[in-house]
Amino acid sequence: MGNVYAVVVAAGRSTRMGGINKQLEPLAGIPVLARSLGALEQAPQLEGIVLAVPQESAGEFRKLADGWGIKKIIEIVPGGDDRQQSVFAGLLAVPSGCGLILVHDGARPLVSSKEIEDIILAAAGCGAATLAVPAKDTVKEAGPDGFVARTLERGRLWLTLTPQGFSYDILLRAHLLARHRGVSYTDDASLVEAAGKPVRLVEGSYRNIKITTPEDLAVAEGLLSLRDETNGQETGDRRQETE
Amino acid sequence: MGNVYAVVVAAGRSTRMGGINKQLEPLAGIPVLARSLGALEQAPQLEGIVLAVPQESAGEFRKLADGWGIKKIIEIVPGGDDRQQSVFAGLLAVPSGCGLILVHDGARPLVSSKEIEDIILAAAGCGAATLAVPAKDTVKEAGPDGFVARTLERGRLWLTLTPQGFSYDILLRAHLLARHRGVSYTDDASLVEAAGKPVRLVEGSYRNIKITTPEDLAVAEGLLSLRDETNGQETGDRRQETE
Repeated sequence: MGNVYAVVVAAGRSTRMGGINKQLEPLAGIPVLARSLGALEQAPQLEGIVLAVPQESAGEFRKLADGWGIKKIIEIVPGGDDRQQSVFAGLLAVPSGCGLILVHDGARPLVSSKEIEDIILAAAGCGAATLAVPAKDTVKEAGPDGFVARTLERGRLWLTLTPQGFSYDILLRAHLLARHRGVSYTDDASLVEAAGKPVRLVEGSYRNIKITTPEDLAVAEGLLSLRDETNGQETGDRRQETE
Repeated sequence: MGNVYAVVVAAGRSTRMGGINKQLEPLAGIPVLARSLGALEQAPQLEGIVLAVPQESAGEFRKLADGWGIKKIIEIVPGGDDRQQSVFAGLLAVPSGCGLILVHDGARPLVSSKEIEDIILAAAGCGAATLAVPAKDTVKEAGPDGFVARTLERGRLWLTLTPQGFSYDILLRAHLLARHRGVSYTDDASLVEAAGKPVRLVEGSYRNIKITTPEDLAVAEGLLSLRDETNGQETGDRRQETE
């Protein structure tokens, strides 16, 4: 499958966190981003990480990565105006020997080693895959008037998580196509779908939440307090939380 | 708007909780269901509550309600084989003076007084309303092959919560129609939509989660640990958590 690299996006403005940068917030003592990077650091298949950060904060993020012993970072790049542009900036900085690329949100600190492994295997097998969980709540589509336009068939709905994994060439071409068309998407799998390639759904864990609001930090602390008796083990300075 | 009553459904088998009944599980010292009932108990507009429970556990649930000072329960009824049948059983036990009916999951203990008030007002205004939150994650529809069939337009998607609120007549007729047709739905709003009535979306809080797995209990404990500085206040034996 060639060498595996990851692009981690941490360039958002954290507008829903009231100005503080969610990536740098401590979560049970360890910054959110240090946990996300740490999970990737532990994945034996992964060669290196490109980290996309806010332009003005590169030094701060470098210090965080060094301070928490993240050795796989090969480059820190300035992110773009939105998530898609940040991923693209990361893709351009990946070494040429890259076969598979993972894209991970820096704000998903509870990703497990099993999830990372599963997504690498699936992407290696079919070229494009995303972690996802089945929708638990009934999902409605709203009309322009604030009333329900229709209820979707829940049994077929999945909420996507990261990492998503792709053949590097497939993802790069999908990004180039989207740039050419001038469209933006909420995740990389959507870009690849729009380029006409099939994307496989790989079941992840409800634990793998994205930290967007201060409440999400409290939720994550709650999840961290649950020790998985069968898989939990101390590795380095953080406990690996797995389903 | 006539008298307002609520049907609270707590008749599920909690299969995803490994056999323990999630409704009776303590959440920061207070059982999940006692919190859900307590929130409704505090709503001044609400006249009474019909509680649907597993047939074999009526005594246990009665003791819980009494023990936690829930005075608005007017009847405890045995639930049916699924959620829809349990709601229907509850509807039949509601007093005839009922104008508006709320349907609430017993497993949503973090509902706020503002959410209850908002849904009552919306239902009074237009006859049918559901609490909901905007989807944060990208939502995909799966094909039968385990690959993504399509990505939905996230900006229009809402995940429904409870309470949902209805004109009693509208909800009863929707249930009768569904029974006649022999179809079942994942929420009451869907029943009303299927009967051709418009349902309004009312924005609720991401805090108002449903307890389905042991992990959800940990998440709820995390959320409870966050004191809302502007709205939090001690009322009776529980703290009102609001957005």
